Amino acid sequence: MNFLNEVAQHYPDAISLAAGRPYEGFFDLDAVHRHLETYRAHLVAEFGGDTQRALCTILQYGRTKGIIHELVARHLAVDEGITADPESIVVTVGCQEAVYLTLRALRVTDRDALLAVVPSYVGAHGAAQLVDMPLLPVKDTPHGVDVADLAAVVRDARTAGLRPRALYVIPDFANPSGVSMSREAREELLRVAAELDILLLEDNPYGFFGAEGEPAVPTLKSLDRDRRVVYLGSFAKTGIPGARVGYVLADQRVVLPDGGGSTLADQLAKIKSMLTVNTSPIAQAVIGGKLLENGFSLRSANTAERRVYQANLRQVLDGLARRFPAHEVPRIIWNTPTGGFFLVMSLPFEAGDDLLEVSAREHGVLWTPMHHFYGDGRPRRTIRLSFSHLRPEEIEAGLDRLAGFVRAHA
Amino acid sequence: MNFLNEVAQHYPDAISLAAGRPYEGFFDLDAVHRHLETYRAHLVAEFGGDTQRALCTILQYGRTKGIIHELVARHLAVDEGITADPESIVVTVGCQEAVYLTLRALRVTDRDALLAVVPSYVGAHGAAQLVDMPLLPVKDTPHGVDVADLAAVVRDARTAGLRPRALYVIPDFANPSGVSMSREAREELLRVAAELDILLLEDNPYGFFGAEGEPAVPTLKSLDRDRRVVYLGSFAKTGIPGARVGYVLADQRVVLPDGGGSTLADQLAKIKSMLTVNTSPIAQAVIGGKLLENGFSLRSANTAERRVYQANLRQVLDGLARRFPAHEVPRIIWNTPTGGFFLVMSLPFEAGDDLLEVSAREHGVLWTPMHHFYGDGRPRRTIRLSFSHLRPEEIEAGLDRLAGFVRAHA
Repeated sequence: MNFLNEVAQHYPDAISLAAGRPYEGFFDLDAVHRHLETYRAHLVAEFGGDTQRALCTILQYGRTKGIIHELVARHLAVDEGITADPESIVVTVGCQEAVYLTLRALRVTDRDALLAVVPSYVGAHGAAQLVDMPLLPVKDTPHGVDVADLAAVVRDARTAGLRPRALYVIPDFANPSGVSMSREAREELLRVAAELDILLLEDNPYGFFGAEGEPAVPTLKSLDRDRRVVYLGSFAKTGIPGARVGYVLADQRVVLPDGGGSTLADQLAKIKSMLTVNTSPIAQAVIGGKLLENGFSLRSANTAERRVYQANLRQVLDGLARRFPAHEVPRIIWNTPTGGFFLVMSLPFEAGDDLLEVSAREHGVLWTPMHHFYGDGRPRRTIRLSFSHLRPEEIEAGLDRLAGFVRAHA
Repeated sequence: MNFLNEVAQHYPDAISLAAGRPYEGFFDLDAVHRHLETYRAHLVAEFGGDTQRALCTILQYGRTKGIIHELVARHLAVDEGITADPESIVVTVGCQEAVYLTLRALRVTDRDALLAVVPSYVGAHGAAQLVDMPLLPVKDTPHGVDVADLAAVVRDARTAGLRPRALYVIPDFANPSGVSMSREAREELLRVAAELDILLLEDNPYGFFGAEGEPAVPTLKSLDRDRRVVYLGSFAKTGIPGARVGYVLADQRVVLPDGGGSTLADQLAKIKSMLTVNTSPIAQAVIGGKLLENGFSLRSANTAERRVYQANLRQVLDGLARRFPAHEVPRIIWNTPTGGFFLVMSLPFEAGDDLLEVSAREHGVLWTPMHHFYGDGRPRRTIRLSFSHLRPEEIEAGLDRLAGFVRAHA
């Protein structure tokens, strides 16, 4: 995404419907200090009053798998109904390191391949590229993974001598598509994954940002009965982005070359010991304190943020409907996610990096060309719109500018 | 090092002459709070009073290359006499990520190889393993790299079709050997590296922990005139281990496939964007505040720590001389570093993992078998002793127990 960053830097006055950053209106450094102290007090109590031990846990080199694994397990129980052995959790430097560790463990030979619904998050492409793992695209539908295509891709890959190990998927308000899978679609995906004998890598950064009052659809991991799902978690959107803390729940049993048993989490920890050694205990302490102060529920801790994201989503959908009425020719369409940070708009022309620069320069508005999420560089007629970090007046002005850009090129 | 950790966990009452952890006696969480506020105030001033921008710099997703690069450059100028363009610095998750990023960039094909003085730091072996880069061992001497052997290894590797890209080296108080290179040896190494056309990866975690009053030997990077040295920096020993902040100074010019120019730092940032995205800005802010509060000199900020390490080193050397007199048969010998965290002891028997466990169980003392630093698993007659984190009474008891173990097996 270097090109996108460069465009954004060149046109600092452009309104960004491109950046997927969390909302900044509630940022609070005093809360960071408080979280740190909350976590310290928690450790002192846990260590029977041993203040030096608590201090060293936060300030010294630490356990490779992390120091807040037990708190993360309680959070998963409270917010997701997931029962997790804390020893199966590895706390990581954001979710991106979790993706890398998992792919590095799964890539044993150059025959191992990753499946991913495309369009998909660029971080998955990036991590696959770093570990030299081919990425096999699987078709997306407005309801999630196309399981028939998944089965066909796996079959063809095996015929070609490849070993598809896992499917990377964001079942809730996906990046970039905004699409969410129904409970039935999730159960079907689990069945098909079992039949095909592949793992599911479930990435869930946006799950808490659905409509208020609407019951959340269970995560794949909470429906998983046979350790089929590796759960990739992020505190960047629900905790504090600046802490860069994520985690992976990897409870799969692994047979070691020496015949001994282990878990995938232990394997990931071994890789992490050669990559980043451990995740900053200070940063973990900040997230740990936030978990402790909120009864382990980040769903409830993010009530205000969810309202902002939902209001922004409604404003963008209403604003698009007003600016691009259904009877207009050529017709401009977009999908209608019920939560998350993103939606996808279809234009009557190819919208690549060159037109993004035109849009930034002449219309003062940024968006993300969808080809970045396919990994093949071929320009497409779709763009991703993001609205998570904007104020209402920025959304209105941004949509006005976007409409000006679209009309100039349609 | 998983086995070593397991032994340490199994025998919690054993005194550890194995762990290379920094001294904990000066740990202070209040200082962490203060550093964070110092850095915030610095940003507010830098941003002309824009408090929200300062807040977002610390709490939001951030620049891939880091937010304290300018402070790190000033630190390098003050403490090392290194003139660094801040744009050539990438702030990393500890020095280990810096090593990984550098090797991942240098490994373009499977013909690319890393040279390393052995015995050498396990993290270099680990990162090379993660990027599937063969490690070519170069002989060590009591004065540092054996440059004749270096030239021979490079020649042989090229004949075999390999492409040796760089030599990993710790010129100051090396881990595990404790050896430091003289200024003349450093200048010779730079000359030889230029002749051989290889990079030098200079890792320098212990450089500030030499004898008081003795002038520091210049780093390779400060002697480097033709961008031959990639400088790997750590704040784990000189800043706060729990921040997990390191950096790499990579000012080498790189020609891109499209013919454009870039620096190695830009390449490393691109890899980092796929690995950890950015280093926790909160953790960076803590280190940034410590740099600001100490006029960018970590050498002076670590005066008290250096005194502890120097006193511990003297106590260990004196204690060994008392317990293993020169006239005794078989004679036990060790080297005499003038700083750092480590020294190496030669025993009249092979000291592998099995004997370490005996030592832990029967004598209550831990040390590190040297074979872990060779990467070939072959047991050796040498062990590494570490003394950085111990109190005086622990050193005395530890040496007593070590003497007991040695006499039982010599």
